[in-house]
This record gives sequence, structure tokens and C-alpha cells, in this order.
Amino acid sequence: MIRETDSIDMQATDRIMERSWAAWQDYRLRPLSERAGLMREIARGLDSLGDEIIRTAMRETNLPEARLKGERARTIFQLNNYADACERGDWMELRIDTPDDKRIPAKPDIRKMMVPLGPVLVYGASNFPFAYSTAGGDTACALAAGCTVVVKAHPAHPDTSDAVATCIRQALVACGLPEDIFIHVHAESLEDGRALVTHPRTRAVGFTGSHTAGRSIFDWANGRKDPIPVFAEMGSVNPVFLLPEKLSEDAQEIAKMYSGSITLGVGQFCTNPGLIFGVDSSALDHFIQHLSEWISKTPAGPMLHAGIARAYAAKMAAALDQSDVKLAATGLSGTEELHGTATIATVDGDTFLSNPLLHQEVFGPFSLVIRCRDAAQMLRIAVELEGQLTCTVMGTNDEIAHHPALMAAIADRCGRLVLNGVPTGVEVCLSMHHGGPYPSSTDARFSSVGADGIKRFARPLSYQQWPDELLPDALKNANPMGYLRVIDNEASTGPVTLLG
Amino acid sequence: MIRETDSIDMQATDRIMERSWAAWQDYRLRPLSERAGLMREIARGLDSLGDEIIRTAMRETNLPEARLKGERARTIFQLNNYADACERGDWMELRIDTPDDKRIPAKPDIRKMMVPLGPVLVYGASNFPFAYSTAGGDTACALAAGCTVVVKAHPAHPDTSDAVATCIRQALVACGLPEDIFIHVHAESLEDGRALVTHPRTRAVGFTGSHTAGRSIFDWANGRKDPIPVFAEMGSVNPVFLLPEKLSEDAQEIAKMYSGSITLGVGQFCTNPGLIFGVDSSALDHFIQHLSEWISKTPAGPMLHAGIARAYAAKMAAALDQSDVKLAATGLSGTEELHGTATIATVDGDTFLSNPLLHQEVFGPFSLVIRCRDAAQMLRIAVELEGQLTCTVMGTNDEIAHHPALMAAIADRCGRLVLNGVPTGVEVCLSMHHGGPYPSSTDARFSSVGADGIKRFARPLSYQQWPDELLPDALKNANPMGYLRVIDNEASTGPVTLLG
Repeated sequence: MIRETDSIDMQATDRIMERSWAAWQDYRLRPLSERAGLMREIARGLDSLGDEIIRTAMRETNLPEARLKGERARTIFQLNNYADACERGDWMELRIDTPDDKRIPAKPDIRKMMVPLGPVLVYGASNFPFAYSTAGGDTACALAAGCTVVVKAHPAHPDTSDAVATCIRQALVACGLPEDIFIHVHAESLEDGRALVTHPRTRAVGFTGSHTAGRSIFDWANGRKDPIPVFAEMGSVNPVFLLPEKLSEDAQEIAKMYSGSITLGVGQFCTNPGLIFGVDSSALDHFIQHLSEWISKTPAGPMLHAGIARAYAAKMAAALDQSDVKLAATGLSGTEELHGTATIATVDGDTFLSNPLLHQEVFGPFSLVIRCRDAAQMLRIAVELEGQLTCTVMGTNDEIAHHPALMAAIADRCGRLVLNGVPTGVEVCLSMHHGGPYPSSTDARFSSVGADGIKRFARPLSYQQWPDELLPDALKNANPMGYLRVIDNEASTGPVTLLG
Repeated sequence: MIRETDSIDMQATDRIMERSWAAWQDYRLRPLSERAGLMREIARGLDSLGDEIIRTAMRETNLPEARLKGERARTIFQLNNYADACERGDWMELRIDTPDDKRIPAKPDIRKMMVPLGPVLVYGASNFPFAYSTAGGDTACALAAGCTVVVKAHPAHPDTSDAVATCIRQALVACGLPEDIFIHVHAESLEDGRALVTHPRTRAVGFTGSHTAGRSIFDWANGRKDPIPVFAEMGSVNPVFLLPEKLSEDAQEIAKMYSGSITLGVGQFCTNPGLIFGVDSSALDHFIQHLSEWISKTPAGPMLHAGIARAYAAKMAAALDQSDVKLAATGLSGTEELHGTATIATVDGDTFLSNPLLHQEVFGPFSLVIRCRDAAQMLRIAVELEGQLTCTVMGTNDEIAHHPALMAAIADRCGRLVLNGVPTGVEVCLSMHHGGPYPSSTDARFSSVGADGIKRFARPLSYQQWPDELLPDALKNANPMGYLRVIDNEASTGPVTLLG
């Protein structure tokens, strides 16, 4: 019976977290090869679930088959990719300083590596039933780091989450590992998770969702007697800056590209471009005109659930209701309550600067085009923006080179800076940073995508004066695995050679 | 006039932080060589201040000349060592993933590096007027990361802080850099700093001091609309675990070593060993007896200021006043109000487990020896301990190998694990981790000592699809500086070779 509880009371929480803690005492000491083996076994299991789980997810999320198949493939790739990174070991940040007995005072032997934090609580996300949920990026990174995982399933797709959880349990059995390395719980409300966040055995939290929910979790975690890290990815309006020369060259092409990005997945990606800034001009008029044409031909699509569709309609109406906001285009309207209709509006830069509501995310296929008075106003807006997962610049090389202050201001507001492309589409690779300044995430220093995400669930530990035979393998002199280590300030994949 | 303000009101705070922000717009774009050049110039300046600043610090802190000269030398070493690390560039964590146009969908070119957070607020520490104050580790790391710095001088050594601040200003002038890269302010109370912590331009805080003060700063920072990271190092009781075989071999030698560590600098190091655990036995009796002999011969020493001496006397009295706590030895008593007298007490393991007050730090030359009933009780205590900067194990290799659960529990509670040594003495090197689980620090993932401390003041930023000529130098294909970079998952100091 996977469905552990329907509401989490304090007693259930204690039982869950003590089980996770006990399993961690075993798992934290397992070699990297066993952690990677578990991750690869989970990946194989997800693949072998075939079409049935896709049908379950389609029913629960209204997402189309191709998208869900792609997301499952991405989730499998993540597990395998992070398993490789786990074994490569760069994330352990191995540092060795060799001793010097002749120095006064004598210099001790000190060696440092990353060690796992402990049991990690992961909240499933509504918009990614695979890649950011039960066996998603947070779970994969925590397992790689040597942490045990408690997943709170997202209530919008409980059956999908159950099927993935079963797959993880089977992988644990197949690998001969304690089953409590992974625990799966159901809870209806965010508040039900509070006891898990504040439990003394919980050492970190991963979350993807709204700012309201993410901030609550962050506040609970920091209000603890012993605060714990929260990695909450809370969405973003992903501003796009259209520079004049580029826009006058390519207005039509950019409009087509952005029409696709704004409406991709019914606008339900955290990297959806919600604000588009241009300097008021005939080129910007052309852009708005072309974008409106594309948007007006876009059919409405079903959103994840009726609650999200209602929130989209309400937030969009509120934005359109602000003074001086003008509706530019709407897509074809839908027949069902949960359909979301693509919509574009425009506003001038002064109004945008003075109305904070217009800076907020409207989760769905809505974008606001801001007519800036001039380049100076665009710069001022960039400086005033809240933190973002991504910012995008559409500009010629000359324009980029000639606007260093604007580029610096934009770079300061985001975690990923896209040039002449769209922010949607998050590549899973080591160089990806997915986590920008607050409020796009609670900790801009860590990424929720890419193998550097493993570092979220680990911390450094120094060993001083330990004999070689008692050190963890990764810090021993011989280094048979060829880990990259910094020895006396020099990177090396070789052994340690001690003098004397 | 360096003494900016005597109390920080909102207007002064605004002025200070806007100046720091404006200077950051310049400094953040400076090449690593200029940042390192500034740090080395500050180091030269500190050296050239000669004996006068040592006399000033002696007057203000009551610390002896040799200690202050050693601390100044360490501060100079830190500046030079972190300058070298800044230029070596490993802290930028450069990652490059090359594009693949043939993949469907096409794989974009993505490159990632660390960028500075922005203006950093540093609180000077009372117990380290040089190494953790005005030009100390936090300032050095922030400057290396490309951040500007606002230092709130510690009110216990304002003249020392002024002299160091003048030295930093002169270095800025000598390097042709904007003087507002460094701003020095005086404020009497912790509360005076609140406006600085909560100012929108402040991006991070460094602090070394008490738990009460550190937690206040942490709560202010996390209560902001946009929370910012706080790196507060808040002390530790640095538990020592004496394993039976080792103790029976070396009781006398260990007692001598610990007498020195407990009383070093009148017990005012954050790595002072405040709790010593042993299994009740005749070997432990011998240890206590020898330790008592050494302690009883120790002369009282002047503490940093009268407030600290009073707090020491009060906290020690409270500890001695707990039921079943037995005084074992006191050192020679002092003649002055600010003298601290070395003191050792003992208690049994059951009492220790049931009385949280005995787990708390008594800042000064006081240690409590806990007679554990058996090895199982020692393990239980290790699991229950709060987070610590360091833990130390005194044991034979055989004992370490045969107590994996105890070793794992101890490792989980600290940032540095010392074997057969003393925790006092913090080596400044890359493998040093100085920052343990809460409450020893607010963020166990970052170190306040060693060049990895630079990473506290930076965050990753990804560049997607930027042409080579517009990328920051460190991410360009050519890599003339030979930075260590991970290119397509492989470490390399060479250039990027693009296909096609």
C-alpha cells in the first residue's frame, strides 16, 4: 500500500521521518556506484512502465501524449545523467592540503569533501508530473548526494505519482537497498506538509510551484529552531528585451517565434515569456501586429486542472483591468471550463513602472508587451525588475556591445541569459542554471536542473589528521577512481604524493 | 573622516547602500587581476602599518602583542591567498556545453560561471580584530567575488577598525578604483545594523559572533521581501570524544594537550573545546586528574572586554550551579575585573542528556568533562548534539575502525573532524571547512575560512547562445588564462573546439 496517509498528522510525520532517518544511516555510507546503480534502475523502471503511465498522466494532467512522453524521456535522461555525474564525483569538491611538519606551527593534513545533508523532503509539482515530481530532478539529485527522500505527491496527479513511487520501490528491492530510502506520501493541502518541513529529522526541502506556497515553506523552514535549506523554484515572468536594430530587421520572425513560446504547453512552463519590452517605434508596432496575428489563430488548450484555468482567467482579467492596459489579441476561445485562451496586451513604460501588479506572473499563455519611451526607460525598468529564472535579449551583436549598462542590469536579475532565442526549453546539462534571484527561487546559488543540482543536498566536511586507511575512499592518497581533486591548490586526477 | 555615523538612521543607510551599489556597477565588471591587485595592495598596507596598529589593538582588545601580530600576519596571508585563488578562477565553476545543431531539438550553446551577488555587509567580530573584522576573511572573499563591501565596525575596537579602513581606502586610491567599493561605518548596537541588513541594495551579510546576534541578523534577512543569504558563524562547543583505548594509553599527554587548547587565548576562540566526553573508567579519572593539575596552575588572563568577562563568569556560574555538576579544578584567579579564570567541571552522561543548558557554549576557558556510562551512551549523546564547527576524536586506528556508527554520528554534527589533535588553530587553506551545522553557523554549506569562502558571495549565471566575442572572457573559446573549465562534462584547461 503506497498511499501512506491521506492527511499527515504529527504521529504519521514522526513515523515517516524516523524511517527515513534510519534508512539514511545505511544509505549515506553507500559508495557512489550503488547510488548511481539505483538511479539507473529507476530510469529503466520508468521506461518499462510503457504507455500505461502515460495514459494515467494524460487523464490526471490534461497534458498531451507527446508532451508527456517527452517529459518521461527527459526524466529518464536526468536520472542517467545525474547518475553519471554522481560517479564522476566532481560534485564532491575534493580538496587536499598535505602536511608540513617543518613549518612552525606544523601544518596539519586536511582533506575536504561533500557529505549528504540527510533526509530530503520533495514536493511534487503540478506542471511536471514526471520531471519535477516523484522521480524528478530533486529526487535524483538527493539520491546522488546520498540523501534519503520523502516525496509529498502533488494532489493533482496522485495515480501517476503512485505508479512512479512503485517503480522506485521496485528499484530499491532490485538493488538490495533499504526500502525506506524512498517514502511516498499523499496530502491534500500545502499546510499538511508543514509538519514534514518542521520535523527535526528533515534536513532540506525541494519544491516547484507558486510563490505563495514556496514562501510558506521557506518561512516554516527558517522559523525552525535549526533552519534548513529550502530550494523552492517559484516561477518567473521571464522578461524579453527587444533591441531596436534587431527588431527592425526581424520583427516578423521574432513575432512568430514568440507566439510559439508564449503558447507552448498552454503557457504552463516556468520559463514562459510573460513580459516583452521594446522601445516605442514602428518596428515595435509591426512586431505587435504580427504577434497578434499569430496569437489570434492559436486554438485554446486544456490547462492542468480547472483550478489553474480559473486562476489564469482571473489573473489575466485583473491585468487587463488595469488602467492603460490595452488588449492586443486573443486566441480562439475554448469550449471547456479548463481551456486557457492565448492573450496579448500592451501598456506604456510609465504605467508599467508605476503598477507592481503588472510585474506579476500570470500563469498561462498571456504576455504583456511594454512600450518603453526610450532606451533609458528600458534600462530603468531592467534595474527595477524582480528576480527571474531567465531574461532574454533580442539584439544584434553591435547593439549588445553598445549597451553594457543594460546588459549588466539584465544579467543581475536572472539565472539564465538567453540571446536571440526563447526562454522556454530547459536543456538538462551541467552548464544549465535553473534558479534565479528571489522571487524566482529561494536560493539563487543553486540550480534545480543539471548535475550541479546535486550540490543542493550536500555540505562540506573537513578531515584533519586522519590516517589514509581511515579516510573516505575519495580522499585517500591512491585515488584509484581518478576523481578530480585539488591537491595543494592544483587540480589533479592522480594520487597524493606525500613528502617525508 | 572615516567615522561615517555614530548611529545609523534610515537616511544614512540609504546613502551608504546607494553609494555601495553605484560602486558595484563598476567593480563587478573589473577583471580578476584588478580584484586580486586590490587585495594584495590592502595586504601590503596592513603590513606597513607596523607596530602602531598592534598597540591600538592591544589597548582596545586586551589581546597580547604576539597574538595580535600573528593575527595580522594571518590576515595578510588570507588577502594574498584569496587573491591567488581569485585569479586562479576555480571558484567561478566554469562549465561549457557545446551546441549540437543535428540533435532534434537542436542543442543550444550554454556556458555558466559565477557572478558577484552585489553589496555585502560585513559585521566586525570582537574576538578577531583583524582576521574576522574590517579587512578579514569576509571582506577579502567578497572583494574577490566582485562584490562591494560595507563594514560595520565592532564597537569594541573602533580605532583599530578605523586604521584598517584607512588602509583599504588608500589601497583603492593606489589601484585607481572607486573609493565606495569599501565603506566603513560605526554603530553601537546590533539593532543599528538592522536597517543595513534589510536595505534593498544589500545582497548578503557576513557575521562572526554570538548566537543571539547571528540569529537576529538571520531572521531580519529572511523576513525581507527578497531574502538574502546570511553567513553567520555563531560559535560552537567543539565536543571532544575520548575513546577508551587511546585514553588508557595517553591520558597524561592528552590532558596536557587539552589544558593548552582550553586556555589558549583565555578560551576566546570559536574552536575552544567546551565539552569532553569519555566512558567512565579509571583512565578517565586519570585524565581528569592530570587535566585538573594543569588547569590549577594556569594563570588568569584578561578577556576581550569587561562585558565578555562578566558573561563568562555568569554562564560558568550557571553551569556549575546545575545539579550533579561537580567542580574539578580552577586556575589561578585574576586581579582584574576582566580576568577570566580557567575552570573544569564534570558531570555524568544521564544528567548531561537531560539538561540542555549543559550543551550551551560558555565563551571562555571553561570545559565540562562528561562521564558517559558506556559506549552506547556516548553514541546517543553524539546523535543528540547540536551542530558544531568541529568535533574531535581521540582514538587508536582500531577504535575508529570499530565504531562506524559513532564516527558517522559525530561527522553528521560538525564541519571539521579532527583526529588525535585539538580543534583550536584554524588552518587557512582550501581544504579547511569552517562552518558547521546550525547553530554553529547559519549555512553549513559555506566556509568562512579558506578560498572556498569566495563562493559565499557569488551565484551561477548561464549564458545561452551568446557569440564568442560577447561572452565574458572566462567563458570564451580561447581560454588564454588557462582556467579549469568543465567542457561537455570533461575537465579541461584548454580552449573549446567547436565542431562544424
